[in-house]
This record gives sequence, C-alpha cells and structure tokens, in this order.
Amino acid sequence: MTATVNDRNGVDTATLFATLDAVKAAPQAAAFQFRAHNEWVNGTHSRGQIRDFFGVGEERAHERTFTFDADHPAVLVGRDNGPTPVEFVLHALAACLTAGLANIAAARGVRLTEVRSTVAGDIDLNGILGLDPSVRNGYQNITVTFTVRGDAPPEKLRALVEQSRARSAVFDVLTNGVPVTLEIDAG
Amino acid sequence: MTATVNDRNGVDTATLFATLDAVKAAPQAAAFQFRAHNEWVNGTHSRGQIRDFFGVGEERAHERTFTFDADHPAVLVGRDNGPTPVEFVLHALAACLTAGLANIAAARGVRLTEVRSTVAGDIDLNGILGLDPSVRNGYQNITVTFTVRGDAPPEKLRALVEQSRARSAVFDVLTNGVPVTLEIDAG
Repeated sequence: MTATVNDRNGVDTATLFATLDAVKAAPQAAAFQFRAHNEWVNGTHSRGQIRDFFGVGEERAHERTFTFDADHPAVLVGRDNGPTPVEFVLHALAACLTAGLANIAAARGVRLTEVRSTVAGDIDLNGILGLDPSVRNGYQNITVTFTVRGDAPPEKLRALVEQSRARSAVFDVLTNGVPVTLEIDAG
Repeated sequence: MTATVNDRNGVDTATLFATLDAVKAAPQAAAFQFRAHNEWVNGTHSRGQIRDFFGVGEERAHERTFTFDADHPAVLVGRDNGPTPVEFVLHALAACLTAGLANIAAARGVRLTEVRSTVAGDIDLNGILGLDPSVRNGYQNITVTFTVRGDAPPEKLRALVEQSRARSAVFDVLTNGVPVTLEIDAG
C-alpha cells in the first residue's frame, strides 16, 4: 500500500493542519455539543441513538444514525441484549486514545502498522447494590494496555501514546471528572 | 400485558433480591472486572469488542461478542464510520441511569410506562487541538434530560431517578473521576 504525505495512517494531514489553522483564526468554531438519546426497552435493557450534534457554528448530523443496545448480563439480573453501560465507558477510552494516536503519529511523520489495546476496569458491586457505604459506585481503577508498532523507535512510539493521553477528551473526563446536571420531567 | 410481581418493568425482582442476599452472604462475589478490546483500523477509525469479563468468582463472557466502530465525522477530519469516543460516554451515562431506574422502580413497586433521556455534553475543541492551554480536553459540562412516566405521582417518579443517580456507576466515574493507569508495549 502506498501512502502519500496527505494520507499517512489514513489521516488526511493536509486537512488536519488546515482545520487547525481554521480554528486558530476562528476559535468559536471549536465549540461543539455532542448528544446521545436513549429509550428504555425493558428491565435493564435500553436502546441509545447517536445522530445529531452541534459544531463549527451549526447543527449537524452523522452520515447515519448509530443505534446501540445496553443491558446487564444474566449474572447481573439482565438479559444480555448489549454490553453494560460501564463497558461502553471502557470502549470510549480505548477509541479516544487510539484516534488521537493515529492523528499525532501522522502529524509527526510516523507510520503506524499496528495499534491494539485492552481497557480493564475493576468495580466492586457492593457499591451500586447499596450493601457497603464505604464502596464507591463506579470503577475503583482502570488499566489501559496498549500495543503499538510502527516505523519509529520504541521510545518515539511510546511518546506518541503519551501525547495522545495528554490530549484525550475521554481520559480527561474520566480522570478529572465533569459536572453533570440532571433535569427530570416526571408525570 | 399482565405483569407479575416477579417481572415488574421486565425486572425479575425475585432474582434481584436473591442476588442481593447472595452478595450480602459473600461480598467478594461482587468483585467484577469489565473489559473492552480495541483495534485500530485506519485514521481515527477503530473497532472495539466487548466480550469477556470477570465476576462472581470466575471468568465469564457475554452471550455474544459486541462490536462497535468509533470514528470522527468529516468535520473533525474522520470518515464517520462510527460515533466519536466522547459520544459513547454520553450513551453510557444514559443507559446506566435508565437501567438503575428500572431496577429501583421494580423494587419499590412502581410500574414504568415510558423512560426517555437525552444526554448532551459541551466541549471546546481548542483543548484537544492544543490551541488554548486554558481549555480542558474533555467536556466542560454534561446535561441529562430525563422523561419518566409511570403509575406513581410525579414526586415519587422523580425520586426514583434521583436514587438511580445516587447509585449509578457511570455517573460516579464521570463526576468523581477514577485513576487510570496506562501500560505501553511499543516496538
């Protein structure tokens, strides 16, 4: 496969740099709002849709609507119609670090040949079950294991992953937290 | 549709309470590890798989492997092969609050007829683009809008949602943060 400078790692670096210049010239273009819609199906089973978002000054939509079921497995009194919500969080972290890695490698002229990762989260369900007030509801810790191969020395490849972490939106919200407001229409 | 006490809201409350009793008797059964696996495809496009997990003392697997693509839309220099990673986070939060709501309503004898939600997250991409060091990488705030209908007064329905928030694993990690360790195999 022959890649050009404009398509290193499948990243259109010319457009990437042009986008950076455009945002430098008009910083308000970088104000985005992402959204997920959800409808309860039955029991712990719900169905989410991701389609619309706001960015670069206007309402936008993905090229198609993405639909994802979530559920609990039988061992957690569900019917396993989809992953658990907490597993989607781990998926999001892996995908964020990977996308950033590809962009950063392309920008720095490194050709990647393989990127794989596993994200594991340890959770004590005594928290959400309300059985032990000293146990938190969420993960106690998360471990990301990355394998990265490419045409650069190991230390340079490692630095690319570190830089991706330093610029990861999901890593930021998971490690630093984010204010969440809940509005309820009950009736 | 005739529901029995054991299947209120599609929740098997007998099994739910039996599970609570089992964990009370053997708290270590509640130690779970969830995992997501990810493989880079091209550019900002990656593919995640959710299949194996540990819980109730042994390695387990979902009834099937769940596969999810993630990507950036064209406006963010991707090819829109899937939602962005940050959208998966919003989906996870909606699904977690909804599953908890159904369980809690069932346990309290409330029959739900409708649960819908939208989760919106505001993000300034000057952060991840590295253009403004005063801007964080992740969401600046997240707003959850819930619509809940059922056979209880509005205040009781509202209290169910509040209790779901109080016991939500995803709400906890997003609002309070979680330690994340990164291990890199580079070569």
